[in-house]
Amino acid sequence: MRATIMLDVGADIAEKCSAVAGIPVDVKNPDGADIQIGMRDFVPTPHLKLVQTVSAGVDHLNFRNFSDRVLFCSNAGAFSDSVAQHAFALILSSTNRICRFNDEIRSGVYRKDLVHTLYGETLGILGYGGIGQSCARIARSLGMNVLAYTRSRRDDGYVDRYADSPEEVMSGSSVVIIALPLTTATRNYVDRKLLQKFRGNIIVNIARADIVSKGDMIAFLKENPGVMFLSDVWWNEPNVELPLPENSVITPHVAGISQESMATALMRACGNVKKYLEGKPEHVVNVKEYL
Amino acid sequence: MRATIMLDVGADIAEKCSAVAGIPVDVKNPDGADIQIGMRDFVPTPHLKLVQTVSAGVDHLNFRNFSDRVLFCSNAGAFSDSVAQHAFALILSSTNRICRFNDEIRSGVYRKDLVHTLYGETLGILGYGGIGQSCARIARSLGMNVLAYTRSRRDDGYVDRYADSPEEVMSGSSVVIIALPLTTATRNYVDRKLLQKFRGNIIVNIARADIVSKGDMIAFLKENPGVMFLSDVWWNEPNVELPLPENSVITPHVAGISQESMATALMRACGNVKKYLEGKPEHVVNVKEYL
Repeated sequence: MRATIMLDVGADIAEKCSAVAGIPVDVKNPDGADIQIGMRDFVPTPHLKLVQTVSAGVDHLNFRNFSDRVLFCSNAGAFSDSVAQHAFALILSSTNRICRFNDEIRSGVYRKDLVHTLYGETLGILGYGGIGQSCARIARSLGMNVLAYTRSRRDDGYVDRYADSPEEVMSGSSVVIIALPLTTATRNYVDRKLLQKFRGNIIVNIARADIVSKGDMIAFLKENPGVMFLSDVWWNEPNVELPLPENSVITPHVAGISQESMATALMRACGNVKKYLEGKPEHVVNVKEYL
Repeated sequence: MRATIMLDVGADIAEKCSAVAGIPVDVKNPDGADIQIGMRDFVPTPHLKLVQTVSAGVDHLNFRNFSDRVLFCSNAGAFSDSVAQHAFALILSSTNRICRFNDEIRSGVYRKDLVHTLYGETLGILGYGGIGQSCARIARSLGMNVLAYTRSRRDDGYVDRYADSPEEVMSGSSVVIIALPLTTATRNYVDRKLLQKFRGNIIVNIARADIVSKGDMIAFLKENPGVMFLSDVWWNEPNVELPLPENSVITPHVAGISQESMATALMRACGNVKKYLEGKPEHVVNVKEYL
């Protein structure tokens, strides 16, 4: 068995990957390789048995180009801590008005205003996987309660209560974080009907833009100027259409992209290749959910 | 015994305070009152026995105007959670470049860049009181290690290691939070000598400006453009002198000022009045430290 990394990495990195995976690993050499490790640009060769992504999400892959015999494994959870950090960077810079205050002081205006303390409030989480769990842990440290909606509940001590429906999360939380994978079932999941249940003041999307209905969200933000939409993703990125809603803060899909997290994620992906070789692969993708 | 609140609050609030303190409480009526509760504007009347601040810090009070027989109690810890939230709002908006990304996208520039993951890094805390503790709790939830320097160590499970000196905190942390009270002993505590030990990239001041030597910090920031100074306080506020150092983010002394936290802090102050009446006042100020 041989694996190849479909990314621009040096021979030193490939060597480390080889040590973790337990088989020879080279770089960008898919011909005859049994396993391809990378973000995208996977090649459907006859030999291919496993595609192991370094990314957590797999919605960007063209599954139809590959034979049914190819197994796909995601790297779910690999970026959870850094993505959760980004979610709270968006939330806290908004509650504590960091950008506005700093801009004002730099232009000579020293104006105090109330900030918004999260202590005692409820964080709602739609989709409680690795990212949701990391978000819940941070929320608890800020004194928030956590209300989650998920298909597979886990008893990790961070969730105060599981909701029976996404509507219950929307109506019972002051801050809602969207942390669902994008599948055919979750496309436009957050639509007008769900948004109308919202009674809080902040909605955060650190998942994929298309989980939210664009038209419905834009209309909702116009009708509810007191609600802030904080999003690391945007429809049709990088071609973001201006002007953007005033009550939104947008970052260019950077949650999780740090030097440290990329290196960690690649090694984690190689660790899963080893598990595959041992017959116990994790994060096996149910391809049907993406077709 | 009678207490009076030296703040513009309604009779309904005074009634709630009375219920908590267990004695009659009125508003802005210091003549003959035994106890004054407020932020500042305390009056040295002959009857006065106790000054109970709603603020956590007491460095702004003119202790010399009052008789030695007056007891001063602070409200240390009352704003800890909201101040710690502000500290991390400053830190995370910086590590994850929220203001810059949002500004760029709004001006049509969609440019990805690496963010800075805190997971595995060390937060250093100078002064481990209530605020320090709340900061440590949040840091742990982000996967950081905590290194603290304090006069009175406490075993709360949030500190990984106590340092023997402030220098050790500076040299061993990537992020340092200043959370000391301002006393005669801590004025200009963070000076050139201490700053030169710093090997990290973020220094946060959510305490008082004068704990840091202004000249030394400004020079340090010029010499070290890779270090960010995030501060909720500034020398001679509100008269902030422009231009400000480029590698700084400043907010107008708002940490802890939220509607929720002010109401909670007032009730907490009244709770301490009750403890005083029972002979067990907490947070008694050692006035000598402020003269």
